[in-house]
Amino acid sequence: MEIIRSNFKSNLHKVYQAIEEADFFAIDGEFSGISDGPSVSALTNGFDTPEERYQKLKKHSMDFLLFQFGLCTFKYDYTDSKYITKSFNFYVFPKPFNRSSPDVKFVCQSSSIDFLASQGFDFNKVFRNGIPYLNQEEERQLREQYDEKRSQANGAGALSYVSPNTSKCPVTIPEDQKKFIDQVVEKIEDLLQSEENKNLDLEPCTGFQRKLIYQTLSWKYPKGIHVETLETEKKERYIVISKVDEEERKRREQEKHAKEQEELNDAVGFSRVIHAIANSGKLVIGHNMLLDVMHTVHQFYCPLPADLSEFKEMTTCVFPRLLDTKLMASTQPFKDIINNTSLAELEKRLKETPFSPPKVESAEGFPSYDTASEQLHEAGYDAYITGLCFISMANYLGSFLSPPKIHVSARSKLIEPFFNKLFLMRVMDIPYLNLEGPDLQPKRDHVLHVTFPKEWKTSDLYQLFSAFGNIQISWIDDISAFVSLSQPEQVKIFTAPSTVGKRNLSPSQEEAGLEDGVSGEISDAELEQTDSCAEPLSEGRKKAKKLKRMKKELSPAGSISMNSPATLFEVPDTW
Amino acid sequence: MEIIRSNFKSNLHKVYQAIEEADFFAIDGEFSGISDGPSVSALTNGFDTPEERYQKLKKHSMDFLLFQFGLCTFKYDYTDSKYITKSFNFYVFPKPFNRSSPDVKFVCQSSSIDFLASQGFDFNKVFRNGIPYLNQEEERQLREQYDEKRSQANGAGALSYVSPNTSKCPVTIPEDQKKFIDQVVEKIEDLLQSEENKNLDLEPCTGFQRKLIYQTLSWKYPKGIHVETLETEKKERYIVISKVDEEERKRREQEKHAKEQEELNDAVGFSRVIHAIANSGKLVIGHNMLLDVMHTVHQFYCPLPADLSEFKEMTTCVFPRLLDTKLMASTQPFKDIINNTSLAELEKRLKETPFSPPKVESAEGFPSYDTASEQLHEAGYDAYITGLCFISMANYLGSFLSPPKIHVSARSKLIEPFFNKLFLMRVMDIPYLNLEGPDLQPKRDHVLHVTFPKEWKTSDLYQLFSAFGNIQISWIDDISAFVSLSQPEQVKIFTAPSTVGKRNLSPSQEEAGLEDGVSGEISDAELEQTDSCAEPLSEGRKKAKKLKRMKKELSPAGSISMNSPATLFEVPDTW
Repeated sequence: MEIIRSNFKSNLHKVYQAIEEADFFAIDGEFSGISDGPSVSALTNGFDTPEERYQKLKKHSMDFLLFQFGLCTFKYDYTDSKYITKSFNFYVFPKPFNRSSPDVKFVCQSSSIDFLASQGFDFNKVFRNGIPYLNQEEERQLREQYDEKRSQANGAGALSYVSPNTSKCPVTIPEDQKKFIDQVVEKIEDLLQSEENKNLDLEPCTGFQRKLIYQTLSWKYPKGIHVETLETEKKERYIVISKVDEEERKRREQEKHAKEQEELNDAVGFSRVIHAIANSGKLVIGHNMLLDVMHTVHQFYCPLPADLSEFKEMTTCVFPRLLDTKLMASTQPFKDIINNTSLAELEKRLKETPFSPPKVESAEGFPSYDTASEQLHEAGYDAYITGLCFISMANYLGSFLSPPKIHVSARSKLIEPFFNKLFLMRVMDIPYLNLEGPDLQPKRDHVLHVTFPKEWKTSDLYQLFSAFGNIQISWIDDISAFVSLSQPEQVKIFTAPSTVGKRNLSPSQEEAGLEDGVSGEISDAELEQTDSCAEPLSEGRKKAKKLKRMKKELSPAGSISMNSPATLFEVPDTW
Repeated sequence: MEIIRSNFKSNLHKVYQAIEEADFFAIDGEFSGISDGPSVSALTNGFDTPEERYQKLKKHSMDFLLFQFGLCTFKYDYTDSKYITKSFNFYVFPKPFNRSSPDVKFVCQSSSIDFLASQGFDFNKVFRNGIPYLNQEEERQLREQYDEKRSQANGAGALSYVSPNTSKCPVTIPEDQKKFIDQVVEKIEDLLQSEENKNLDLEPCTGFQRKLIYQTLSWKYPKGIHVETLETEKKERYIVISKVDEEERKRREQEKHAKEQEELNDAVGFSRVIHAIANSGKLVIGHNMLLDVMHTVHQFYCPLPADLSEFKEMTTCVFPRLLDTKLMASTQPFKDIINNTSLAELEKRLKETPFSPPKVESAEGFPSYDTASEQLHEAGYDAYITGLCFISMANYLGSFLSPPKIHVSARSKLIEPFFNKLFLMRVMDIPYLNLEGPDLQPKRDHVLHVTFPKEWKTSDLYQLFSAFGNIQISWIDDISAFVSLSQPEQVKIFTAPSTVGKRNLSPSQEEAGLEDGVSGEISDAELEQTDSCAEPLSEGRKKAKKLKRMKKELSPAGSISMNSPATLFEVPDTW
């Protein structure tokens, strides 16, 4: 279901209901760009620490706009053993709410825009009809503005003037305004005397004059009149004064209050959906979701905190339970049987044995997606597909139980090992960002920091290290890189700087790209590729054996100890 | 005529022809934002020097994208005494040309985007079908890439490897590639022996391997074969080898060269239109055109230079003759009879006496605009309207001649005083940026630089200076402003810092805005307003007298000295 500015309010209850009844959600975001740095590959070094990666993404990605948000809710129907889905595709745009509201600037990356354009993305929907939003601080400020206005209009104006926060003092009427104010008071006296007239429209005047009028009337006529500011068609503001009895005045105040509350809700806009997701505390699934999570927090809650540990805390408050399907698919028992963890390929792979496609049906009134005709990169569809991938993988875990379980729910202990671990793209030896505690600190004693002349290319590095067998190169900049050797003991050789003459080359696919003069820019699809990993083949085999051993050790589902469920499928500390 | 990526090439000759035959052009740009600073009013201080203003615009406006460019050409038809117009509305977008081409990042300002959206601007046309472009440096780089590729493919590969610029040396074949290369050579030998096969498709391989193949074949088979790299549907690159005689080989090379030249032209794209305008050397009209000129130079020529004098030089190379209708309308003899110089209001005003709307017709095959149903903020329409305004004002100048001249051409000396002076928005005492020489340096001995507590508002400043009559305030930041007094001698009073107690206020319209908590953001329409000027009324009257005197002094058109034409309507040095 497509949700834009014009149908947001009328459909919000459907969104709330879907969130309320769901077992879990899947989310996805589309952004106006990925990285404003020199190139994605230069920004994502294979030996980044999680802290470094966080800082890079925060610095180079947060100025882009998340302008499409996909939410797909999944509710299990036990009668028919199938999931009922409700998929929402929200268009989001920070339309300035009023003259004093923030005028957001965001960056667009032409390659990302061009990519989305080629996928048929509708930019007009975003910019003409995107749902506005406020983060928490902006919401607080707007609420304060309303409160202040109200207290002023209520005749409690003086109170707001002496508030130390607003730095506004009661204003005495300047000499040259006295006549103006006297005339206004005269007109109001006439109105109060009059039996025919109930309302009085004052001429448009300046904001300062309006303030003087409000102030004067609030002490001169605390009761009996209602004062309101309206706008002409030319956007000139003028004051309307009405004779009212106390009951009528209160009714009007309440009406106005309700209207203001509605305006405020409209301004908070899409953030209300994120609040509802957060408040539900339910499991939120994403695919390669670190950037989605960072953007969501940044855009709808508050600017990202300075360091990673604060970010973890904040994220856990907003999303207490996250699961990244890319991380799941890259972890045992899936790692060995899933080659390509890009969302599109993963979805295809999970339709084949040993997996089975989940039974899923879209709820009544919700259009159904056809996975045969791909609509990738529409956030709602990507969220839907992500949910399907999760279900297939979760259910596969159930097959290890004896007797096997066909349906593994979002509350099952089987999936807990995957909670709150977000896939770290292109990091060689740290598979995930751990939101629940300290991150993995792999030994990096086989990794060399190498500096060299600017002219050097990957082939030169391969040549330099050709005696050391299999090496992995992670470029830092033009003149330095991390080089990981297959054996830590080899590092000892490099106690002094070495300048080895050129020898034979051992080019790899990666190098070829550089040889072609490619700047390192990569497509969205490429970003999704799993990195070739430094792990030697023997390691992989070891894990396969471990899996077999685990399988044997499995006890029947009923007798699994629920206190230590993570022993079943632990996300390994070392990869 | 709407020009987008898909119809650009087929219509370019029409654009060229229109430029070729025109008497003058009008241009206009639409941008993704105006200012990325805190607020437009904070960035445009009323006492900016031209250098300061240039630096501010360069810093805070150049990251936005000029994404719609309007060009309207005007050709005078002496037979029917009317202008024939051709209006073009170009959508422009920096679509990355290939993997190594620049990935432009640009900023969007949500208020600007929202404003354009409300005017029905079609963002999909920009992002899906905008015409690409390269600046001169990017064009040069791309040309070099092609040259290098070609010399490599031509068998002159070795030459490019030893070029000191490319830092590429001839590569010896590494041990582990020798077998691969030998197999390739073997296959080619088979091909050369074969009588049936004329072509050989090699398997996709790495860029490094392709380089080795090219290099090997260029010395092993300098003649008799044609080597080409193609791409599979999966974007894998592979080499195709064809048996050819020398004639065929040359024909293919030429074909390829022509194709590359076309690709290059496609990449240079919209910049070709700007080059054609520049090369014509003809008069280019704009309304409040400083930002349009800056963006055009920045986006299609080269990043803006560090200081204003270099910018002036560069601009004069690109646009040797510019005329700003906002500056013209703000100058005598127009200043006194034109109240509002915003484009929409100016256009309306110039239809009334003493002006007369010009006789204008759109050329055959070009849709005509109807000025009755406004299409403001479509760049092509705005350019058209700007041209109309210029014609009306130019013709009005002709009415001062005796006998009066009804048609004043774009080559008339009457308009020369307005050349190369770009309107400076919101500067109190420097009306224009002078592209042809040093800028005006008005006396500012009546201007005070005032600092004050953060809490102060405009009203506090008025209060402080209430004894000095009419003052003008130009905010610099939260704690400082320029205050101009009406009499320079008053300044003497302020030899020591003064802290005057609060007195009565003298609020103005401007202040009222601030009182309302307005952040200083202003709409496009407001930006167009002429600043209320520090000039006392008596000054205006003096000018009116001067104009009358000028009128009297006018000699018949034929006898005007063509050597000193600027004496007729000189843009005054002081306002």
